[in-house]
Amino acid sequence: MSKIAYAALSAADVNREFDAVSKLYEGLKAKNLKLDMSRGKPSKAQLDMTSDMLTTLSDPAQCLSDGLDVRNYGELAGIPAAKKLFAEILGCRPEECYVGGNASLTLMYDLISKAFTHGLKNSDTPWCKLDKVKFLCPAPGYDRHFRITESFGCELITVPMTAEGPDMDFVEEQVKDPAVKGIWCVPKYSNPDGIIYSAETIRRFAELKPAAKDFALMWDNAYCVHEFTGDYVPFPDIISLCREAGNPDMVYEFASTSKITFPGAGISVMAASEENIAYLLKLIGVQSISCDKVNQLRHVLYLKDMEGTLALMKKHAAIMGPKFLCVLDMLDAEIAPLGIAEWQRPTGGYFVSVNTAKGLAKRTLELCREAGVVMTSAGATFPYGVDPEDRNIRIAPSLPPVEELKAAMEVFCVSLRLAALEQMLAK
Amino acid sequence: MSKIAYAALSAADVNREFDAVSKLYEGLKAKNLKLDMSRGKPSKAQLDMTSDMLTTLSDPAQCLSDGLDVRNYGELAGIPAAKKLFAEILGCRPEECYVGGNASLTLMYDLISKAFTHGLKNSDTPWCKLDKVKFLCPAPGYDRHFRITESFGCELITVPMTAEGPDMDFVEEQVKDPAVKGIWCVPKYSNPDGIIYSAETIRRFAELKPAAKDFALMWDNAYCVHEFTGDYVPFPDIISLCREAGNPDMVYEFASTSKITFPGAGISVMAASEENIAYLLKLIGVQSISCDKVNQLRHVLYLKDMEGTLALMKKHAAIMGPKFLCVLDMLDAEIAPLGIAEWQRPTGGYFVSVNTAKGLAKRTLELCREAGVVMTSAGATFPYGVDPEDRNIRIAPSLPPVEELKAAMEVFCVSLRLAALEQMLAK
Repeated sequence: MSKIAYAALSAADVNREFDAVSKLYEGLKAKNLKLDMSRGKPSKAQLDMTSDMLTTLSDPAQCLSDGLDVRNYGELAGIPAAKKLFAEILGCRPEECYVGGNASLTLMYDLISKAFTHGLKNSDTPWCKLDKVKFLCPAPGYDRHFRITESFGCELITVPMTAEGPDMDFVEEQVKDPAVKGIWCVPKYSNPDGIIYSAETIRRFAELKPAAKDFALMWDNAYCVHEFTGDYVPFPDIISLCREAGNPDMVYEFASTSKITFPGAGISVMAASEENIAYLLKLIGVQSISCDKVNQLRHVLYLKDMEGTLALMKKHAAIMGPKFLCVLDMLDAEIAPLGIAEWQRPTGGYFVSVNTAKGLAKRTLELCREAGVVMTSAGATFPYGVDPEDRNIRIAPSLPPVEELKAAMEVFCVSLRLAALEQMLAK
Repeated sequence: MSKIAYAALSAADVNREFDAVSKLYEGLKAKNLKLDMSRGKPSKAQLDMTSDMLTTLSDPAQCLSDGLDVRNYGELAGIPAAKKLFAEILGCRPEECYVGGNASLTLMYDLISKAFTHGLKNSDTPWCKLDKVKFLCPAPGYDRHFRITESFGCELITVPMTAEGPDMDFVEEQVKDPAVKGIWCVPKYSNPDGIIYSAETIRRFAELKPAAKDFALMWDNAYCVHEFTGDYVPFPDIISLCREAGNPDMVYEFASTSKITFPGAGISVMAASEENIAYLLKLIGVQSISCDKVNQLRHVLYLKDMEGTLALMKKHAAIMGPKFLCVLDMLDAEIAPLGIAEWQRPTGGYFVSVNTAKGLAKRTLELCREAGVVMTSAGATFPYGVDPEDRNIRIAPSLPPVEELKAAMEVFCVSLRLAALEQMLAK
């Protein structure tokens, strides 16, 4: 089979290559694989590794935290010890933290929901009373972010991504429109590109001057301590940067322990200016008496502090690192020489983002699925689920063991080659 | 001091009684008590009694439930075993259950919120697009219910309570107005009256024919297994009753384990027609990947089934029963002869609801507070926090040990007497 760029092949070579790759594909299909790489789901090995979580809080006498019995009602914003833990991880202040339940996604949804029904701190009017609400969506990005704002009827505006983060010239232009009410960001190991926003990008975000005074910078720091190779990469605190830039109420930062302890049973945080938190607590106080404080304390006892958290993340990295290496090695060996796709080389996060030549993503994933390998749907990383150039594929290597991952990547590489060859033959 | 009805006292007797009660009050004030009976908070004894919860799920091998690893992402509607447990407790079907996080309050808020932003299954339009939304509030009732609908800008309509539940003649008349979109109900051991809705009231609810086709019967079955004296009282399943009456989508039932296991770390349920659940899961799927399934499984392992739950409730009753007895005994001995208040004699739930003579509630609680006893604010049990006759006081006996409760009730009874005498002297 070819190890040179497909563009350089003669018509006869393309036919020969197509036959060879088709045969390979049929062989893989016959294996009847059943592999799921559709979501950034941690693996069983990671769950087992953190299962001391189950026993770390086992004695009623442990249930007092700062004088508060975590088993009972109360303490709306979360226990002080959990605020302190998250503040240390994010680099902000404990009083800027609201500690939530098992999902930062829910905190993000609820914030947007409250913007629509009640308005944010600086809103003149709840967003549901406006004719049009627009939201900026750097893409490729996280489908669940986009779906939240889509679900509330926002007009989603695609923001191009660069190697330094969202295209800030574009963003600065867009926010002049008062109907543009916010933007979705995953600033560290962005989903799916795995890039880290540059210091310059972050500075320009903090200094943004949106026309909408209730503009929401949705800063989903989902992978804040999620290096899978190398040491922890320090990251600036967006809350203080926005404060220093005279934009204290513009930013809402989110994080969780979903990929630190248990994905389904972690704790989450929303960090924002003290004034924002005070405003939101008045609204949240109608919805909740507090989130699960027993689980908050369980996390504090288990993770202890930033040092304890980073030590645990090293153990995750020992499991995750080889999986990413496997994906990148396969792409390097099987795809790189052919010139039919390119990708980033992340050092943290949960994804590898592959950009194929135009028009190959959907067909590649269709071929994968027919051969028993399910990946995130093509288009999912773009607003409304439509990738205008049909190029982006999000690979989530975390769930399968390395052996299965290798089998899945074999299917992926062959499917991508076959899709490229089909396209060449159709021309 | 007087043991006869105040109304029968001569002017001179009133003066004498006022002096005697004032002296008593000053004596109690001098004790510098600090007692909180403001909320239906379980006591430390109850928390300690259920603390096997902390160790019941301690081995990673236990984390598989119906083939699902509860530690990981997924299973939006909750684990099947938890649905089964709640279905048995409520008498409905597992597939009619959505299992949530630590608070049914949050489920109720979120349902109303989604009605406003997206509409309910049978809505023509989201409620936020309507000029006026009215909501029925049987009062005295639960302040947090009223506050949810108030927070969304609903007009709250007070529905009189009877010994059989809300005044159904009034309700049936009100629901002819298409702007009336729902009603708050606590059908068993209603908050605060502690009454159980009669079979006739429940039947009339199920057969309601509201003009609004998206009318929401908010059925908060918070005290479904919360007898504190005597055996479990079976209660009809409102979901099937509404289905049988041709109103399958009208009702949303809520319950939680907040007063079964840990108040701050229980699990909750919303039960509704399968069609309603299917509709809502589409919306909830944007907000959540699932609630905390580890805690759901922990509850299933701890409570096991209805039998296990009722056995635990007997233990709660052993702690709660004497407290209610203390409150009722004190009222009987100190207040009943004076004719200045009346009250129900609940056999379950978390409250004793005292109706004073007109205009005494606020002053009584002010006197209590000055003597170090904090109770639920006067008016809290009415829409907008305003009790039109200033009569209703909610006593929450659960938190303090019996000795403290006795001291608090002493303060309460003396404060009520003093308030009554002040009123008589002012006339």
